[in-house]
Amino acid sequence: MKRYTAILLALAAASSPQVLLAEGNPEAGKAKSAICATCHGANGIATMPSYPNLAGQNAEYLESALKAYRSKERQGGLSMLMHAQAASLSDEDIADLAAFYAGM
Amino acid sequence: MKRYTAILLALAAASSPQVLLAEGNPEAGKAKSAICATCHGANGIATMPSYPNLAGQNAEYLESALKAYRSKERQGGLSMLMHAQAASLSDEDIADLAAFYAGM
Repeated sequence: MKRYTAILLALAAASSPQVLLAEGNPEAGKAKSAICATCHGANGIATMPSYPNLAGQNAEYLESALKAYRSKERQGGLSMLMHAQAASLSDEDIADLAAFYAGM
Repeated sequence: MKRYTAILLALAAASSPQVLLAEGNPEAGKAKSAICATCHGANGIATMPSYPNLAGQNAEYLESALKAYRSKERQGGLSMLMHAQAASLSDEDIADLAAFYAGM
């Protein structure tokens, strides 16, 4: 079972589609991040232990997460809060925010 | 709208229930983390930019995320991979893994 799982994961990693992502602007992201800081901290370190730190997180992961919140594909936990936050974000907003947090 | 959102978030943060979490053992977590390292890296830095880094992430957040994967409450993105990984984890396994990654 463990071997099967490892093979499955290796295949998934190898076959992950290369998603084309917008090039984010971290300065613009900083300017757009005021509301994020309420929970995720002005420095990307969450203000509550139940929230994730974002500082240094992978930009590509952050973009996919924000887009999945925006589309409400991502469910579970406190996702309802993030659905509300992401609803009005453009692709450019998301790329900028991802670049800002990834660059910390 | 922005003001309303800020108030909503502040209320949500203030009223977040204090979840009672098991005390994880980072050494035990390290021993259980071999399969996680395939994607999230032996050092908690993801092997692919589409996966999240886990090093230094909040233990409480990691526990809630793993439990939400285990129950399949968490959906979206590559969650199917994590559903399979988390399915066989006990609460103690989850606490140990969370302590391991949070302590990095």
